[in-house]
Amino acid sequence: MPGNSFGKMLTITTFGESHGEALGVVIDGLPGNLLVNLDDLKAELRRRAPGQHAVHTARKEEDVPEILSGVFENKTLGTPVTVIVRNTNQKSEDYLKLKDSYRPGHADKTTLIKYGIRDHRGGGRASGRETVSRVIAGYFAGLVIPNVSTYAYIEQVGPYKLKTVPKDHKVDRGEINIPDPQMSAEVISFLEECKNNGESAGGIVAVSIINCPVGLGEPVFDKLKADLAKAMLSLPACVAFSLGEGFNFAHLLGSQISTQPEAFGGIEGGITNGGPISFKIAFKAPSTIGEKAKEGRHDPCVLPRVVPVVEAMTKLVIADYFLRQQAYESFLP
Amino acid sequence: MPGNSFGKMLTITTFGESHGEALGVVIDGLPGNLLVNLDDLKAELRRRAPGQHAVHTARKEEDVPEILSGVFENKTLGTPVTVIVRNTNQKSEDYLKLKDSYRPGHADKTTLIKYGIRDHRGGGRASGRETVSRVIAGYFAGLVIPNVSTYAYIEQVGPYKLKTVPKDHKVDRGEINIPDPQMSAEVISFLEECKNNGESAGGIVAVSIINCPVGLGEPVFDKLKADLAKAMLSLPACVAFSLGEGFNFAHLLGSQISTQPEAFGGIEGGITNGGPISFKIAFKAPSTIGEKAKEGRHDPCVLPRVVPVVEAMTKLVIADYFLRQQAYESFLP
Amino acid sequence: MPGNSFGKMLTITTFGESHGEALGVVIDGLPGNLLVNLDDLKAELRRRAPGQHAVHTARKEEDVPEILSGVFENKTLGTPVTVIVRNTNQKSEDYLKLKDSYRPGHADKTTLIKYGIRDHRGGGRASGRETVSRVIAGYFAGLVIPNVSTYAYIEQVGPYKLKTVPKDHKVDRGEINIPDPQMSAEVISFLEECKNNGESAGGIVAVSIINCPVGLGEPVFDKLKADLAKAMLSLPACVAFSLGEGFNFAHLLGSQISTQPEAFGGIEGGITNGGPISFKIAFKAPSTIGEKAKEGRHDPCVLPRVVPVVEAMTKLVIADYFLRQQAYESFLP
Amino acid sequence: MPGNSFGKMLTITTFGESHGEALGVVIDGLPGNLLVNLDDLKAELRRRAPGQHAVHTARKEEDVPEILSGVFENKTLGTPVTVIVRNTNQKSEDYLKLKDSYRPGHADKTTLIKYGIRDHRGGGRASGRETVSRVIAGYFAGLVIPNVSTYAYIEQVGPYKLKTVPKDHKVDRGEINIPDPQMSAEVISFLEECKNNGESAGGIVAVSIINCPVGLGEPVFDKLKADLAKAMLSLPACVAFSLGEGFNFAHLLGSQISTQPEAFGGIEGGITNGGPISFKIAFKAPSTIGEKAKEGRHDPCVLPRVVPVVEAMTKLVIADYFLRQQAYESFLP
Repeated sequence: MPGNSFGKMLTITTFGESHGEALGVVIDGLPGNLLVNLDDLKAELRRRAPGQHAVHTARKEEDVPEILSGVFENKTLGTPVTVIVRNTNQKSEDYLKLKDSYRPGHADKTTLIKYGIRDHRGGGRASGRETVSRVIAGYFAGLVIPNVSTYAYIEQVGPYKLKTVPKDHKVDRGEINIPDPQMSAEVISFLEECKNNGESAGGIVAVSIINCPVGLGEPVFDKLKADLAKAMLSLPACVAFSLGEGFNFAHLLGSQISTQPEAFGGIEGGITNGGPISFKIAFKAPSTIGEKAKEGRHDPCVLPRVVPVVEAMTKLVIADYFLRQQAYESFLP
Repeated sequence: MPGNSFGKMLTITTFGESHGEALGVVIDGLPGNLLVNLDDLKAELRRRAPGQHAVHTARKEEDVPEILSGVFENKTLGTPVTVIVRNTNQKSEDYLKLKDSYRPGHADKTTLIKYGIRDHRGGGRASGRETVSRVIAGYFAGLVIPNVSTYAYIEQVGPYKLKTVPKDHKVDRGEINIPDPQMSAEVISFLEECKNNGESAGGIVAVSIINCPVGLGEPVFDKLKADLAKAMLSLPACVAFSLGEGFNFAHLLGSQISTQPEAFGGIEGGITNGGPISFKIAFKAPSTIGEKAKEGRHDPCVLPRVVPVVEAMTKLVIADYFLRQQAYESFLP
Repeated sequence: MPGNSFGKMLTITTFGESHGEALGVVIDGLPGNLLVNLDDLKAELRRRAPGQHAVHTARKEEDVPEILSGVFENKTLGTPVTVIVRNTNQKSEDYLKLKDSYRPGHADKTTLIKYGIRDHRGGGRASGRETVSRVIAGYFAGLVIPNVSTYAYIEQVGPYKLKTVPKDHKVDRGEINIPDPQMSAEVISFLEECKNNGESAGGIVAVSIINCPVGLGEPVFDKLKADLAKAMLSLPACVAFSLGEGFNFAHLLGSQISTQPEAFGGIEGGITNGGPISFKIAFKAPSTIGEKAKEGRHDPCVLPRVVPVVEAMTKLVIADYFLRQQAYESFLP
Repeated sequence: MPGNSFGKMLTITTFGESHGEALGVVIDGLPGNLLVNLDDLKAELRRRAPGQHAVHTARKEEDVPEILSGVFENKTLGTPVTVIVRNTNQKSEDYLKLKDSYRPGHADKTTLIKYGIRDHRGGGRASGRETVSRVIAGYFAGLVIPNVSTYAYIEQVGPYKLKTVPKDHKVDRGEINIPDPQMSAEVISFLEECKNNGESAGGIVAVSIINCPVGLGEPVFDKLKADLAKAMLSLPACVAFSLGEGFNFAHLLGSQISTQPEAFGGIEGGITNGGPISFKIAFKAPSTIGEKAKEGRHDPCVLPRVVPVVEAMTKLVIADYFLRQQAYESFLP
């Protein structure tokens, strides 16, 4: 069944195998007249791009976005915006040896069981490469909600944890999205060591949203927190989501919570109250380890590159719910 | 926009305010010829019912399910099954005093902002009472996947934590869904004390699924883990979801994970592999505290009653994805 | 798969077998604060009710609407509105003899093939009785678009055709929705005769919509004309839909059309232009004829009672597209 | 709101403006392992292509399909299939003069009102060119239901009507899809004359479906006839749909229908009964007439080229409903 679309009013449909011709996305439901700046879009893609640093895979894809539809003279037309990125550096010969092997923790085996066929050249759809489409879509979603600011950053990689919460969205996140220069340097060393040893690491990303409009989210299944959770858990290797204090809420008593309203994470009864929203997500270490991880073009850790993807998915959720709520504005007293 | 439906092949639509005439659910997409046992349905509802114990609200609703459609001579017809439960014990006079007050942490204020109107008699849709519809729907979802076993239990309430993971799905969960008699007694005392003091508590529920068919879930947005997360975060007061080791994955290295394949929680690349699936969810302490909590008909903790709701939502996700996958069975080699 | 919902922003889900406990509808996506007048709703239901005339089935259902949710102190809450109508006059004993017979032209056999089971007491879901839910939903849809006027009337029954198009929406449609007293009297005689002879008749309904907002409809699949066609063809016994001049367009040349812009039926490129919209639909004669039609509680013709149902479906389509378009209003220059 | 997708289990999303970079389609929900033959796909596109005859627009697009995803070594992967066609012959300079003019009967004005912007180079999305995406999607839908045969043909163009219904699906439809050589020659002459005179013509297409599986369609809103009607009315210039005898049913009495069961068009109660399905659709004459029609690259009649598009939409509906029904096969007795 179709499972490659996300969102109800702002609906994205992504496509493309990691080693096929191209990856891309159709973004349907955008308003017309939004100003599109191709340089801004490319900058977002560069934030996700590999090969910028030793901690990243050596696979230097040049993610050149090509807009096929929906934009005319730098403005959206209100019609579906389609953007593709060609896979210029497929090197599928590297993967021929994988034809009959199934990598544990990957979708290789489950994909074969599910479809009766798989593209043995790579991860197919279940690849980190698929997230390039999400970053593109997130750029366009951001045009719908220009006043909303989303700021994601690495809070933990393996044993390294951030000591201070960044005080605002202007704090520099450095080369690998860690808003603390010392921790950043330590994590880069650690990940280089991981790469050399064929080891891999997991971690935690924190997200802060400010200036989110009030009234977004629906009271039952489409609570905003529910779709944020879905958006995040739909990311490869994402294994956990927590709103506000998250699992810490388990031991907090009602009297302890009531004194810190920000603990609710900006969402009451599933609906935004205009306050800042904060959540965290955990990613597991990549399954590819050992010799294969050393030779291959594999990141030892998804965290550095996943931060712009997390922001993109966040914007997609907010923009979708914003449009949904707009439909009712004229009925409000 | 509509936000009261859940599921794509097995779609439920719930309705009803906590203090309106009735709550209920339409379940669309069920196969015909499933045997319906009204006593089993009532037993599920009793598991969620309040008033069985001092730790529960004094509001003794009698949740009598009435089947309005879709079942004939104890069999499903393939048409939409509609079941309602009347609100017999509304006592909305108790709530008149709430007309102009907004309870923090509840949806009172956000609901008013969103719709320009709210039902001041109670929580409206954003009430724990709404989950009665989910339990009913979960019973019918279970008929679609009779071989799948879901088992949820309380792992933590406030400071009390379960010491041993239950060895199988037969372990008795006692009066309040804690599979350990000693912890159960302690938590009951603790919650009675909370109630007397106008205090409230949060906690953690753990879920185990066995015999889940392989191949469920789609590789991108509709990963099984993504919809499980959405299903759980759509529950009132739910604030966190973690698959398998969850946030613990943050500090585990790839080499540590690779030796324990069960750590993936039965899902690889978003698709089930047939292995056991395990996840945990956290709930915050109810926001109603102080004198209001003592007089009112409020639970000091949602955990004891939420366990059957968690199982119901789990079954709904699995049954939906099972039907989605069935459509392609005849095409497999 | 679910097939009992209609609409994207204003979504209705109907349920109920013709001889089950109740029929009803959940209307999700309504704005809050709409004034609900139960007398108006009952008046709409009476327009569809049988037993008012010899040409109607003798089955005198009392269609008493019961609002279960979504309305409080005569105002919509923005939550799902659920309304049911009990089947008080089921007389299913009459239908026991039908247990092992399949009526041609009905869904009896196809239902059994599809679901492996059927409710032999009556038409199940594929019954004219199901349309009571649509009339209820249409009443609420009308509250969303109070300035839009929809006016449907019978244009043909068997050999009798209307000679003059009604000049506005105020023309009295008489007892059986024919805006011409003489034709009305002739058709009543004709249908009484049909009933006595176990004969049945088909016909044509014409629909006029005025004051429809501009900009409704999407340029490709969700053209307004496309969803109007779907809405109409989803009615039992409906076999044809034509917009504006319809099949007459086949022999009109471009030069002939260009002089009468109203020929387009108020829709250009799938999108409303603010002009009047007109379309026609055809219904076939009921399949039940002969002795069975004489004894049974069967209408010899669906036309007289289907007119309010046609108006309800029209309002549902317009209101749905109106809400869809409202989401983008704030982005227009 | 999104309005560029069609189908529930087999969902297509189309994109592209008539004078933009490319048109294309994402087909989500296809089974894996279907054999793809690029030559067959190209042959389908050639059936829709212009420039083959004097009656067609002079715009000689070379519709070269490029598969971007979902197919590997000539087999579908179960992932979204994306195919694009570049607009190689845009000549948008021809259209500059149209910048400030709105063609009546086109979507020019309604598009501007709706989105606040339009692509003045051409029809944008509301162009016949958009249907190239549908033909591509129809080819893939056909792979899902290889035993179902759909056969569409022209029954009328302006004053010319087909005298004999083709006896089976093998009857040659000639150059412009008319299964009668004499009428074909007459219509070609007539349309050449139209072109020379700046005149345009409408007509009727008839469709026959054989070997359709039983049990397709849902009993209420998703009746098969309802979605066939939607599919057809979503085509540019389509103004009417009739199932079986269609509007002729209006004057047929029940006793007349009962003797010809094939009159129902293979659908009872909205569900297929395995018999042949037949329907007709009408198209209006193109709105562009006069001098503009002589110079421009406009067809004087959409009928000759729309036939493969009609077949494609028919296959999409059947394949979608086939997959929907497959999900329940294992539950049937």
